[in-house]
Amino acid sequence: MRVHIIGTGLLGASLGLALSAKGHQVTLEDTSPTAQQLAADLGAGDVGAPAHPDIVVVATPPDVAAQVIAAALEDYPNATVTDVASVKTRLLEAVRELVTADQLDRYIGCHPMAGREKSGAIAAQSDLFTARPWVICSDEDTPADRLGEVIAMAEDTGASVLHLDPRIHDAAVAKVSHVPQIVSSLVASQLRHAPLEEISLAGQGLRDVTRIAASDPGLWTQILTGNAEEVRSVLVDLRTELDEVIGALELGPGSTGLLAKAIALGNEGHDRIPGKHGQAPTTYAVVTILVPDRPGMLARLFMDIGDLGVNVEDFRMDHASGRKLGMVDVSVVPAIQQELEIGLLSKGWQIPESAIEREGTA
Amino acid sequence: MRVHIIGTGLLGASLGLALSAKGHQVTLEDTSPTAQQLAADLGAGDVGAPAHPDIVVVATPPDVAAQVIAAALEDYPNATVTDVASVKTRLLEAVRELVTADQLDRYIGCHPMAGREKSGAIAAQSDLFTARPWVICSDEDTPADRLGEVIAMAEDTGASVLHLDPRIHDAAVAKVSHVPQIVSSLVASQLRHAPLEEISLAGQGLRDVTRIAASDPGLWTQILTGNAEEVRSVLVDLRTELDEVIGALELGPGSTGLLAKAIALGNEGHDRIPGKHGQAPTTYAVVTILVPDRPGMLARLFMDIGDLGVNVEDFRMDHASGRKLGMVDVSVVPAIQQELEIGLLSKGWQIPESAIEREGTA
Repeated sequence: MRVHIIGTGLLGASLGLALSAKGHQVTLEDTSPTAQQLAADLGAGDVGAPAHPDIVVVATPPDVAAQVIAAALEDYPNATVTDVASVKTRLLEAVRELVTADQLDRYIGCHPMAGREKSGAIAAQSDLFTARPWVICSDEDTPADRLGEVIAMAEDTGASVLHLDPRIHDAAVAKVSHVPQIVSSLVASQLRHAPLEEISLAGQGLRDVTRIAASDPGLWTQILTGNAEEVRSVLVDLRTELDEVIGALELGPGSTGLLAKAIALGNEGHDRIPGKHGQAPTTYAVVTILVPDRPGMLARLFMDIGDLGVNVEDFRMDHASGRKLGMVDVSVVPAIQQELEIGLLSKGWQIPESAIEREGTA
Repeated sequence: MRVHIIGTGLLGASLGLALSAKGHQVTLEDTSPTAQQLAADLGAGDVGAPAHPDIVVVATPPDVAAQVIAAALEDYPNATVTDVASVKTRLLEAVRELVTADQLDRYIGCHPMAGREKSGAIAAQSDLFTARPWVICSDEDTPADRLGEVIAMAEDTGASVLHLDPRIHDAAVAKVSHVPQIVSSLVASQLRHAPLEEISLAGQGLRDVTRIAASDPGLWTQILTGNAEEVRSVLVDLRTELDEVIGALELGPGSTGLLAKAIALGNEGHDRIPGKHGQAPTTYAVVTILVPDRPGMLARLFMDIGDLGVNVEDFRMDHASGRKLGMVDVSVVPAIQQELEIGLLSKGWQIPESAIEREGTA
């Protein structure tokens, strides 16, 4: 296919790299001559505007996406036009106001859910989209052949295609991405003035909750502004529950029911999150192994696990405080837990007593 | 030392196992004859009350700890008495009201920061405390020899001893443990009624933020009630910042400064969390490797890394959606990043372009 990419930042350039590698004919365009040349030099495609592209991908910053999409629909009257913006409803409304009904049928909004903490073509990766969800917001008016083109392009990047209504998409990313980001930042913010001796008690729970609090303020301001209504709606619900918890803590001993409810509702939501590879949540057996913090020890561990023919579903290293010793949690399907434990013990590893259990510790 | 443990649940029995293994003379007591016998059968010590214990450890549920501590100070007039309760200020106040000043000098409150999502002696582990912080709340009136005994006992479990004022301890666990727990539960709670197609967009960020939302409501109700004032105080500060974010989202385009500030304050707090092994935060180089989800592939990867003589500082597996392919992030000291990448590429691994970067992705 002939694919024309407008906007050669991280996403546009990464897409160019991925599609070029698959043999597509990619052309690149950017308002910055330097940026478009850099993307071309990196192998993302050729600078220029083709006469008859099959697909035009708009990968500009969100605040100009609607105008660029409308212009592309006008400039390339036979092309399918798509984009990569992370919020879909407002963009579709803006495009609708700028184009004719016929033109609108050629526009198919997309959101490949890939990104990095770095930006620009220089950070581009040909496999940025590999194994990531690629949301396509088509509707009943979308011509099947155009939809097929977009699906084929997305799949050629290695992404997993999902079809969602724009409103459902925006509500979804508010809950699974935007609100977790804000809340993670708020928890981390409470540590700003804590003495270091207090923070020294930090364990894996805090580290997990605050990992994404390191994200870029500029990028997130754009994302949150673009999905303000959906994000606000979820945050207001969350605040209502937070108010209940604060109220319960004021009540004293009589408040235990309210506190237990708050944690139990969290259990309920947690259990709905799909497991690895998008499957239904699975209860794995967790085997905890003590690993000295020396070169080659993880290698030895995973070599020994490999020798036992065991497939590791997940693993996690628990940072110890003040010690040169790590605890590695290895998740496996329950049926082979015992075999793994016996095997590792026989190879000299230290394994605290283990059991099939849910995640989460006090 | 002769150590008498009152309360043979998870912590008491684990402590008995750890101290018995180190050759201490451990006796066990519990209001439940079955529980104390189970702990003894597991090897945690002998059932019974010694005439002259050196240390008495109260490991009962928190709601009876003060009474049991006071009784132990009375029953064993020469012993040092300590406990393992997770909230210290209220307990110290309660003990102070029940005992004489001389008795109070023999009491040294502790909080070994170890736990599991399972409870009871049956879940006990001799290395439950290994590499975990063990907080000791002594003060200037604490006799040095008694403090030395408690430190020696804690260190014999493999724990890392920290000395903190009870109020500082309680403020610390509110920020690094209790508030993250509540907030994680609140975020997960928002997923209760989300359609599964929305939740299918979940990525590693959501998984990290909500991992501890799987924790036990009963246990957490006790913990939160015991530290209600400190937890409430942090939650109120957090709510103020949440209100600002919600207000900013209502404002529309003019709100970008407020949103950027919220994320930036989170950056600031995040950067204060110590890195691995309690050291100052370190910027590691992250090398991302694509790993097919088949038995032995992780083994091969870590064997190859080991062959290169590289010490892995941290690792993380990113769950892919709908694909049998994982992305493993391996953190190493920046100086050896290039060597690792070249080495792994030469061994046939796929590595997207990488760079020294901070954690956190969009």
